Amino acid sequence: MSEPKPKRLGVLLSGRGSNFIAIADAIAAGSLTGCEIVCVLSNIADAPGITTAQQRGFATEIHVSKGVPREEHDARMAASLKAHAVDLVILAGYMRVLSPGFINAFPDRILNIHPSLLPAFPGLHAQLQALNYGTKFAGCTVHFVDEAVDHGVIILQKVVPVLDGDDEAALSARILEQEHTAYPEAIAHVLSGEYRAHGQRYLHIG
Amino acid sequence: MSEPKPKRLGVLLSGRGSNFIAIADAIAAGSLTGCEIVCVLSNIADAPGITTAQQRGFATEIHVSKGVPREEHDARMAASLKAHAVDLVILAGYMRVLSPGFINAFPDRILNIHPSLLPAFPGLHAQLQALNYGTKFAGCTVHFVDEAVDHGVIILQKVVPVLDGDDEAALSARILEQEHTAYPEAIAHVLSGEYRAHGQRYLHIG
Repeated sequence: MSEPKPKRLGVLLSGRGSNFIAIADAIAAGSLTGCEIVCVLSNIADAPGITTAQQRGFATEIHVSKGVPREEHDARMAASLKAHAVDLVILAGYMRVLSPGFINAFPDRILNIHPSLLPAFPGLHAQLQALNYGTKFAGCTVHFVDEAVDHGVIILQKVVPVLDGDDEAALSARILEQEHTAYPEAIAHVLSGEYRAHGQRYLHIG
Repeated sequence: MSEPKPKRLGVLLSGRGSNFIAIADAIAAGSLTGCEIVCVLSNIADAPGITTAQQRGFATEIHVSKGVPREEHDARMAASLKAHAVDLVILAGYMRVLSPGFINAFPDRILNIHPSLLPAFPGLHAQLQALNYGTKFAGCTVHFVDEAVDHGVIILQKVVPVLDGDDEAALSARILEQEHTAYPEAIAHVLSGEYRAHGQRYLHIG
């Protein structure tokens, strides 16, 4: 019996792409199986994550978003992802709100990670929001992307404590460590075919 | 050197008051020290928690809220608490929004517990809200009460997993178990004098 063809991941990033690196590492280490990264796209010309991707031999593309209408830019991104025949779109620090056209081009196949326990603290600077609110726990959320910002069916979450001595950097680092295990694990859940959304709940059907 | 006088807790409840019972049990068992429950008040004539309080020998009072203007009812409650010289007001399933007049009568001395990881899922049926949203973790929050509903400086939180098989009852029971340890622990934090609010953050200064 032959192995099923690996699922094709397309990564979108705007910065250093530490979650992209974590996913690539998990695939390289064999802890995330059944998939491969087929392209790494960015809207920022000098995104450090693109340099890393090139050094590791991944196909990369830059589609600069600045000054381009959102629909047009998203159409270029979608076309690239379609050309690479991606099965899943992985947002890894992609600092753009996606247009409905983009989202509808990949129904239930766009994943994002957010550094809070959603629905708490959507939007920018989630870790600082948590600190300023005074919560005792924080974390990260991997979720499918729908048309609302930082919303959509939750695949998994990881929790970390907020400590008295934390500043934004310390809390962000503690959360980021969990992000790096959460994202590969969430991708494995999705690819397993053993989970289904019932309303907003993502449940194991194994 | 004599023991300091125990701090006086006034409990407000509308239902069975399971958190009241947990606090009373913690005091009776000696795991929560330095305080005593001096009165148990309810806005509901036949609240089961009042029967329990009477059986255990606590002073109880009923001030029926139905049909009474909020300010007037809250003034009666506040007067009772003042008459009992309470140091802390403990809301234990007290199903009333408090008027500013009541809150300002006990500045930074009213505690509440809410069955979610605030700021997620304020309001009624927090556990069902969490289930319907599809979060992977839920919990409870003990907080000081300010004029916004289910808002105020967070004293502590406890986290529980949401399991695939959970319905509202199962999740509520798992959270309630944590509530019963969280509330006595939070009261101990407050009474210790070793914590201070810095903005919204409640930090240990010991």
